[in-house]
Amino acid sequence: MFNLSRTLGPVPFTRVNLLDSFWAPRQEVNREATIPHEYEQCERTGRIAAWDLTWKPGDPNPPHIFWDSDVAKWIEAASNSLATHYDANLDGLLDALIGKIARAQQPDGYLNSHFIAVEPEKRWTNLRDAHELYCAGHLMEAAVAHYQATGKRSLLDAARRYADHIDATFGREPGQKRGYCGHEEIELALVKLLHATGEPRYLRLAQYFIDERGRRPYYYDEEARARGEDPTRFWAKTYAYMQAHVPMREQTEVTGHAVRATYLYCALADLARETADVESFNVCERLWRHLCTKRLYVTGGLGSAAANEGFTTDYDLPDDTAYAETCAAIGLVFWGHRMLQLTGDAQYADVAERVLYNGVLSGVSLDGRHFLYVNPLASRGEHRRQEWFGCACCPPNIARLITSIGGYFYSQDENTAWIHLFAQGEGRLEINGHEVVIRQSTSYPWEGLVKITVLPPSPMAFTLHVRVPTWCDDWRLSVNGDLAAAAAAIPRTDGVSMNNGYIGISRRWEPGDEVSLQMAMPVRYVHAHPKVRQMLGRAALQRGPIVYCLEGADHPGIPLDRIALPAGDPSGWQAEHRADFLGGVTMLRGAGMVIEEGEWGDTLYQYRPPETRPVNLVAVPYCVWNNRAPGEMRVWFRTTTVAPQ
Amino acid sequence: MFNLSRTLGPVPFTRVNLLDSFWAPRQEVNREATIPHEYEQCERTGRIAAWDLTWKPGDPNPPHIFWDSDVAKWIEAASNSLATHYDANLDGLLDALIGKIARAQQPDGYLNSHFIAVEPEKRWTNLRDAHELYCAGHLMEAAVAHYQATGKRSLLDAARRYADHIDATFGREPGQKRGYCGHEEIELALVKLLHATGEPRYLRLAQYFIDERGRRPYYYDEEARARGEDPTRFWAKTYAYMQAHVPMREQTEVTGHAVRATYLYCALADLARETADVESFNVCERLWRHLCTKRLYVTGGLGSAAANEGFTTDYDLPDDTAYAETCAAIGLVFWGHRMLQLTGDAQYADVAERVLYNGVLSGVSLDGRHFLYVNPLASRGEHRRQEWFGCACCPPNIARLITSIGGYFYSQDENTAWIHLFAQGEGRLEINGHEVVIRQSTSYPWEGLVKITVLPPSPMAFTLHVRVPTWCDDWRLSVNGDLAAAAAAIPRTDGVSMNNGYIGISRRWEPGDEVSLQMAMPVRYVHAHPKVRQMLGRAALQRGPIVYCLEGADHPGIPLDRIALPAGDPSGWQAEHRADFLGGVTMLRGAGMVIEEGEWGDTLYQYRPPETRPVNLVAVPYCVWNNRAPGEMRVWFRTTTVAPQ
Repeated sequence: MFNLSRTLGPVPFTRVNLLDSFWAPRQEVNREATIPHEYEQCERTGRIAAWDLTWKPGDPNPPHIFWDSDVAKWIEAASNSLATHYDANLDGLLDALIGKIARAQQPDGYLNSHFIAVEPEKRWTNLRDAHELYCAGHLMEAAVAHYQATGKRSLLDAARRYADHIDATFGREPGQKRGYCGHEEIELALVKLLHATGEPRYLRLAQYFIDERGRRPYYYDEEARARGEDPTRFWAKTYAYMQAHVPMREQTEVTGHAVRATYLYCALADLARETADVESFNVCERLWRHLCTKRLYVTGGLGSAAANEGFTTDYDLPDDTAYAETCAAIGLVFWGHRMLQLTGDAQYADVAERVLYNGVLSGVSLDGRHFLYVNPLASRGEHRRQEWFGCACCPPNIARLITSIGGYFYSQDENTAWIHLFAQGEGRLEINGHEVVIRQSTSYPWEGLVKITVLPPSPMAFTLHVRVPTWCDDWRLSVNGDLAAAAAAIPRTDGVSMNNGYIGISRRWEPGDEVSLQMAMPVRYVHAHPKVRQMLGRAALQRGPIVYCLEGADHPGIPLDRIALPAGDPSGWQAEHRADFLGGVTMLRGAGMVIEEGEWGDTLYQYRPPETRPVNLVAVPYCVWNNRAPGEMRVWFRTTTVAPQ
Repeated sequence: MFNLSRTLGPVPFTRVNLLDSFWAPRQEVNREATIPHEYEQCERTGRIAAWDLTWKPGDPNPPHIFWDSDVAKWIEAASNSLATHYDANLDGLLDALIGKIARAQQPDGYLNSHFIAVEPEKRWTNLRDAHELYCAGHLMEAAVAHYQATGKRSLLDAARRYADHIDATFGREPGQKRGYCGHEEIELALVKLLHATGEPRYLRLAQYFIDERGRRPYYYDEEARARGEDPTRFWAKTYAYMQAHVPMREQTEVTGHAVRATYLYCALADLARETADVESFNVCERLWRHLCTKRLYVTGGLGSAAANEGFTTDYDLPDDTAYAETCAAIGLVFWGHRMLQLTGDAQYADVAERVLYNGVLSGVSLDGRHFLYVNPLASRGEHRRQEWFGCACCPPNIARLITSIGGYFYSQDENTAWIHLFAQGEGRLEINGHEVVIRQSTSYPWEGLVKITVLPPSPMAFTLHVRVPTWCDDWRLSVNGDLAAAAAAIPRTDGVSMNNGYIGISRRWEPGDEVSLQMAMPVRYVHAHPKVRQMLGRAALQRGPIVYCLEGADHPGIPLDRIALPAGDPSGWQAEHRADFLGGVTMLRGAGMVIEEGEWGDTLYQYRPPETRPVNLVAVPYCVWNNRAPGEMRVWFRTTTVAPQ
C-alpha cells in the first residue's frame, strides 16, 4: 500500500474554512474562551512566571519538570488561532511570552524553566522520567506554529538554537549522550522543525532517537546507575511503559503509556515518509492494526488502565475504569492523519473520525473552560470536569487540535483531491498548480446528505476522492444529479472507481459541478467482539459517526446500570435535532426496560426475578456528556428482552 | 425473640450418627485422608517440631506467629474424630504431641512456640498483629475437645494454666495490660473453657476482652507507640479491620476481616447466652441482619475483597474477585449455630445450611487432601486447590468442622426436640430425662422427601419441631400418613403450629410414629437484589439447598462468560443423580445460548450482534467444583433471550 511516489499532502487548516454547526461553534468557543482561560491558568499557576527564572531554593511552587510543555502547547494553539483569526492583543501576548522564553535561553542554547532554575545540576541526568526532551519537543512545535502563523522567527530561532544544542548533546559520537526521552514527542517535533527550517540534521536527530530507542544495554539502566539508583526499582517495572523495551522495528503490539505511544508512532510515520522507509511504515501498520482490532474503545479512546495511563491486554476494555486520556485520543488523531497521507486508505480516516467526534471532543466542555483528563465509558457520577489540572497536558492539547481541525478534512496531490471528513464549509486545494475550491453543503454529522460543489478556476480534469465512512452501509453518490455509485453497486459509471474506502471520480470538472453523497444514518446498535468480556451481551448506540450515551440528568432516580435495551434492532429509536440542547445536538429517544427494586425489601436473593418496567430513554452524544449537573453516564447497555412481570 | 428461660441445647455430634451419601463419605475421607494428611503437613513444615523449642537465631524456618493455631485446630479435629471413631494410633499421636506442647509451657504458664523460641522479648507487645491470644484461644478449644473426647486432662490442664496466666496479665487492675487480640478467637474459647472447667473467671475474662474492644484511647495506638511505631502507619488504616473501631455495642455493620468478625460475633452470642445479656444479643441480631441482607454471597461465602480478607460495602458482591475465605464461611456456621440455639429461629439454620452445603464444603477436595482458601463464584482457571498453605488456617478448620458436623442437626430442650438439618441417620436426644431417638430416612439434599421416625423409650408427650427450609416453597407434612400441614395450609390440624420456620408437632409420641416431610425440589433460578450491580440481569442455579455452577471441564472450548441462560423459568432443566460422578452428586442438564466468535475475525466493533447458538449445559454442585482438571467455573449467568441469527 505504501508508495512514496504517491503520498497525499494535507490541505493546511489555514486553507479550510468550517462553517458548520458542529465544529465552527467549538472553534469559536476555543478561540474566545479556552485560549484565554488556559493562559490565565498558566499565569495563575506560575507557568508563565517560571520563565523569569526567578525561583530560588526555599521559594514555594518551584517550576515543575513538564510546565514548559503546557505553555508551549498553549503557544501553538494561540498561534494557530492567530493564523485564521488575527487578534492584535493575542499577537502581543505571544510576543511578550516568547520574549520571556527567549531571554531564558542559556548561552549554550539550553532552554528549560525547571532545570535552569531549580535543578541545574541535574540537566540531562534523567531522560527516563524528567520529560526534558519532551518539553523541548513541544517548544519546537510551538515555534513552528508561531512562525507559520506570524512569520516571526523569535521563537523559531530559540528553538533552533535549542535543537542544535540537543543535536550536539545526543548521539553516537564520542562525548555525546546516547539517550532518548522517556516521553516521546521531540521526534515528531524535529520533523516539523526540519520542514520549517530545511535543516536535515533535525531529521537525522529524530532518526537517531527512534533508532536508539529500546537498544540494549538500556540507556535508562546506565543512567539510573549513574544517578546512584537501582534500575530495577523503576516504578513502572518495564520500559514497555515508554515503548523502549525493544527496538522500534521489533515492536509488534501497542504498549505502555498511551500518549507516549501515539506520539512515537507519529514520528515513526513521519520518518517512513521522509526517508521512504518501508520497514518503518510496516511497523506503523502492524501497530495500528493491533490497536484498532484489540485495544481501542468504541469512542476512539485508548489506554484501559490508570496504573500506567495506558494499555493492558488484548480485548481488555472495561467501561467504568477506562482511562482513555484525552491526550492519547488526540495523539491517535495525529497518527491516523499521518497514516492517511501515506496511504490514502480510508481506514485511517474512519478511526480519526471516530476519535474526533467522540473520545477527543468529550475532553472539553461546551463552555470551553472545563476539561476531562480521563474519558470513561461509564461513570457513577464521580467524574467531574476541571478548570485545570496539576498535570495539565490535556487542556492545551485539545486547544491546539481544535484550532487546526480544518487540517484533517482534505488532502491533495498533483492531480487528485481528497475529501476525508464532512462539514459545511470549504477547502481551497491546489491541484496542478491551480486553486480548486471544494465546497461542502451539509448538516453532517447530524444528517447524512453531503452536497459537494467543485469549483476549479476553469474546466480541468482531475480525480476527486470522496470517503465513504465504514459506519455507513447504505449510501448513494451522484454527479450532477446522475447516480454514479451506491453501496449496492460500485462503481456504477465510467470514471468512477472505489479504492480503499474512497470513491474516485475522474472527469473534466466544470466550475459548479456537484457531487452528492447521501448516507443513510439510522440509529444502530454497536456490538463488541465477544472477546471483550466486559461487553458481552451489551450494545452501544451509534448514529452516523456519533457514539451516544445515557446520562443520569435525563433519567432521574434510575441507576443507569439497571437499564437494558431491547434486543434485536434499534428501529424504535428516533433521532431528534435540538438546536437548543447541549449546544445543538441530535439526541435519540427510545424505550428500554429498567429493573426495579420494587418488592425486594430486605431479601438479598430470591427466586422471582426483579420486576422490570418499560422506560423512555434519552441518549445524548458521548462528546457532550458531563456538561450538566454531575451524575451517572453509561455507553454500553445490556440488551435483553425481559418480559414485564 | 431472645428469651433466656428458653434456649435450645444442641445435641452434641457424639450423639448424632450420619449415614447419608452426602456427609458420611466426607466424614470418612476427613478421618482417613484429611486428618493424617494435615498432620504430615504440620510435621513437614516444622509446625510440630516448633514445640521442641529448639529453634535458634540463625536457624532457617523460625516458628511462625500463627503456627500454634494450625496445630491446635488439628488437635481439635483429631480429638473429635477419636470421640466417634476410636483409633489407638491417633490417640497416641495426640498424647505425644500434647506432651511436647505441655513440656513447652513456661513456669508462668505462657505457651506459644513462636514467642518462647523466636522473640521472647516481644511477648504481649503486639496484640494488634501477632495473633498471640488467637493462638491461645485455639489451644483452649483444642484442649476442651481433647478432654471431652478422651477424658484426658493433659492439654486441658496446660490450657488452664495458660488461661490463668492470661487472666492475670490482662484486665483493668493495676499492672495489667488493658489489651485485646487483633484476631478474635480467645473470647469464644474462654467460654468453652468455662463449660469444661466451671471456672467463672474465664467467662469474666471473655467479657473483659469483648467490653474493652474498640474503647478509646485505642490500646493498639498506645501499644504501637510503646514499640516506637507510629500508630497511624497501621497497614489496614482502620481498626474496623479487626472490629475494634468502636465498642462492640455500638457496632451496626459487619466490617473488616471476615474470619475475625465471625469469631467475635460467636463470642458475643455466647456472652448473650451466658449472661442473659439482651443488649449483646441485639447487637448480634443487628449484625446478622446486615450481613444476610447486604453482604452475603449466594454460596454463603462472605468477605468480598482480598485486600482486607473481608467486607467492603453494601451489595458489593463481585463473583470473580470474591475472597469468601473458607474460614469465614466456617465462622458463619459457628455463629449461626449459636444464634439458632438462642432463638429457635429457622433463619439461622437456613443460612447455616446454605453455607455448609455450598461455601464451606467447596473448601476441601473430594480426596480430602486439597483445599481452597479463597472461594470465588467465578474463575478463569487461575484458582487451584493446594495441599497446604503458608497461612494454613483453612485446612484444619474444615477438618474440625466436618468431624463435628452432626452437632448442627438437632437441638433439644426440656420437652421439645428440634430437627434443623436433614440427612439419613439418627440423633439421640434427651427429652425430659429420657433418650429419644430421632431417625431420618432421606436422600437429602438430592431429594426432598424426609421420613422421620420418632423413637421414645415409651409413649411420651413432647413437641417435635421440624424446620421447613426457606429454599422450599412447596411442601407437605404428614404424621403417620395423615396430612398435618402444607405450604398452602399452615397449620392444618390440632397440635400443629408453625413458628419461626419450624413446624411444631405436639402429641403423645408412640415409638415408631412417623413424620413425613415432602419438599418439592425443582431447579430454580436465584436472582440477586438489584443493588448487587455485578449480578444485574444474571441468575444462578439452585436446587434444594445446593447452589450449582458450570465448569469448563463439562464445556470444552466454551468460555463460560459467553453462556447465557434462557430468561423465564428454568423448567427445562433436568436433575440427574450420578452416583459415579464427583463423589455422587445430582447434576443438572439444561440448555442455554452461547455467543460465538464466528465471523468476527479482526473487527473489534460491528453493528451485527455476535451469533449465538444453543448449547447443552451441565451444572454441578458448587461444593464439588475444582475437583477435576483446572479450568473455568461460573455461578452467575446472564439470562437473556437472544434469538439465533
